[in-house]
Amino acid sequence: MTTWVDGAAGSGFDVDHLPYGSTVRPDGSAAVAVRIGEYALDVTAALHGTELAVHVASGTLDRFLAAGRPAWRSVRDHLTGLLSDEQHRARLEPLLKPVAEVRLQLPFAVADYVDFYASEFHAANVGRIFRPGGDPLTPNWKHLPIGYHGRAGTIVVSGTEVVRPAGQARAADDSVVFGPSRRLDIEAEVAFVVGRPSTLGVPVALTAFPDYVFGVALLNDWSARDIQAWEYVPLGPFLGKSFATSLAAWITPMDALAHAIVPAPERDPRPLPYLDDGGTGGLDLQLEVRLNGNLISRPPFAAMYWTPPQMLAHLTVNGAGLRTGDLYASGTVSGPDRDGFGSLLELTRNGSEPIGLPDGTERGYLEDGDEVVISATAPGANGRLTLGEVTGRIVARRAD
Amino acid sequence: MTTWVDGAAGSGFDVDHLPYGSTVRPDGSAAVAVRIGEYALDVTAALHGTELAVHVASGTLDRFLAAGRPAWRSVRDHLTGLLSDEQHRARLEPLLKPVAEVRLQLPFAVADYVDFYASEFHAANVGRIFRPGGDPLTPNWKHLPIGYHGRAGTIVVSGTEVVRPAGQARAADDSVVFGPSRRLDIEAEVAFVVGRPSTLGVPVALTAFPDYVFGVALLNDWSARDIQAWEYVPLGPFLGKSFATSLAAWITPMDALAHAIVPAPERDPRPLPYLDDGGTGGLDLQLEVRLNGNLISRPPFAAMYWTPPQMLAHLTVNGAGLRTGDLYASGTVSGPDRDGFGSLLELTRNGSEPIGLPDGTERGYLEDGDEVVISATAPGANGRLTLGEVTGRIVARRAD
Repeated sequence: MTTWVDGAAGSGFDVDHLPYGSTVRPDGSAAVAVRIGEYALDVTAALHGTELAVHVASGTLDRFLAAGRPAWRSVRDHLTGLLSDEQHRARLEPLLKPVAEVRLQLPFAVADYVDFYASEFHAANVGRIFRPGGDPLTPNWKHLPIGYHGRAGTIVVSGTEVVRPAGQARAADDSVVFGPSRRLDIEAEVAFVVGRPSTLGVPVALTAFPDYVFGVALLNDWSARDIQAWEYVPLGPFLGKSFATSLAAWITPMDALAHAIVPAPERDPRPLPYLDDGGTGGLDLQLEVRLNGNLISRPPFAAMYWTPPQMLAHLTVNGAGLRTGDLYASGTVSGPDRDGFGSLLELTRNGSEPIGLPDGTERGYLEDGDEVVISATAPGANGRLTLGEVTGRIVARRAD
Repeated sequence: MTTWVDGAAGSGFDVDHLPYGSTVRPDGSAAVAVRIGEYALDVTAALHGTELAVHVASGTLDRFLAAGRPAWRSVRDHLTGLLSDEQHRARLEPLLKPVAEVRLQLPFAVADYVDFYASEFHAANVGRIFRPGGDPLTPNWKHLPIGYHGRAGTIVVSGTEVVRPAGQARAADDSVVFGPSRRLDIEAEVAFVVGRPSTLGVPVALTAFPDYVFGVALLNDWSARDIQAWEYVPLGPFLGKSFATSLAAWITPMDALAHAIVPAPERDPRPLPYLDDGGTGGLDLQLEVRLNGNLISRPPFAAMYWTPPQMLAHLTVNGAGLRTGDLYASGTVSGPDRDGFGSLLELTRNGSEPIGLPDGTERGYLEDGDEVVISATAPGANGRLTLGEVTGRIVARRAD
């Protein structure tokens, strides 16, 4: 399948990809879009008058997500046809805008946001830093994908400035201090967008993952380590994470990632039946983290111990229902080696081994003005896909 | 102020109370309602044609909550006038339905749900049971109101059946087992409904509480203690809580609780400035917990260490924004003595000292078919107010 859109063939946004977003048009109205090459196609306009128009008429993905997999496939097939067949070129070219010129917004209303902790390397690194001398992993870690609920209302679209949080922390002399966080970190993560809702009281099985999960997007789970370390015992992270979470503007449909499915790592002990996937369900996404333009890490998502279908099965095994727009993220993606760690906590050993930047400065944690970009690629039908990046710049807190 | 509604004067639902709910009319449409005596007044119909109608036209509280305190006061003043002045009787009597005959739904769309841990007696009881030999309270406990995010999508209205959750737990021999929870508990809590949204990056001060918080409702934070104990280290409660949380159908406006404001308990150490309320902000709600009709506890909300304004100030001090419909709960309300403990965990010492019921049976934790009712009263202008109760019955999990 090749596309008539100039420059798209062989790019990370070829016609086999077609990630979805939501744009704000110059007149203030919203439109669903897909990215093709360096362009955003106005899908709401392109489907107007067809029987598929109802899914995208609102300009955001909410209704489309809720419509379920048959609708996801119908729209994708239709768009693939439009962008592959030269006969549609004249009608659609006016609906293509350079992505650099479109304004992107959060593409759907986030319902509940859950964050997992699914990288063995990340969890072990954190355990070694925060609980030195003990087992790096807690006893439950290899039995279940540990997760917790985050704040859905402070999820912001890629590009939104992040205000440095303030809060309580414990100083070196054990006194309690208050002020702007001094250990502001990133967490490079992959998030999954739930489309179809489920019934309260009825778990979603591993094998039902493709019916419920629409797509994938990169996520930066900004974390204030000093606030987190003081608050998190016994009920988990709260204000150390809830000030902002950045989500990529483009959602890659699961249907574009068929070539990226890989075996999961070996699991020992064997998971309980509701989590036993027979070693399937891994996803080969290669992340990259840049700080002020400098590549500082390349976290491999294929190394995750727990897979996206396992996270979903665990999330619902107690009977919790899913809603359209539920978002769950993997937790920090870290590989076995330092060049694949997904947080500054790990990359700098809690600030004790700062990263040197080409401008001669060093970073243990983020400074005001720093910009972080997380990007990723994955195997696709026409070469590698490029996932929509998630970016954010830190700005100083206003004076209280 | 007296009302013309028969039987309402001197009841817990006198005209000085007027809690809000949302009903489903026989034709399927929704209506905002207030409770007066044993009746629900159809407020959407009663305000039709007035300039206040816009706030309640949708039939739920969402738009009204967002409108802010001046609107909350205008509508309340108007309804108080309608229900006090005999001249409105003939027009409004057809809009009064016996509460036993109306169908109540969740009165607003819950945005984010946060649960605190604000009772010193509860936290110390839990610490003694789960961490025997150590300090009952963690070192951070008296410095900040500990909280975490819960699952907004599984909040259900009072009266909804609760399916017993299943999950992983650690058996006495340290093996990991899977099955329906065997330690299903209640948590008697008080929840606060946020109306006005706030700006991301800007904290909400203690003194701004009345501008942001619309009202209060009882909440039962059902908890599977066996699932929780195994999963919660290090990231906090997840599946042990996320299967269902029951919320009362009637929201008591803060403006009805002026007579219930009391001093807070003495705090030592003195809180940091953003939490330093000078000892104000306590709320005198007297809860009652009934299991299958038997009174098993009377938790006093006035004994809470951290107050509702402090919880809100802490929740936002890092810059987290508020949305209309945010809900935050106090955590289990427990008094200093056994007759005021708000969970079976505390009342039965983790099942080891079961409660005897009049039918000759005993309860360490909940059995299928058990019904729990949490109610409360508070001082009001015309005697005590009765808060809308929150009820739920446990049903067996369907076979997987």
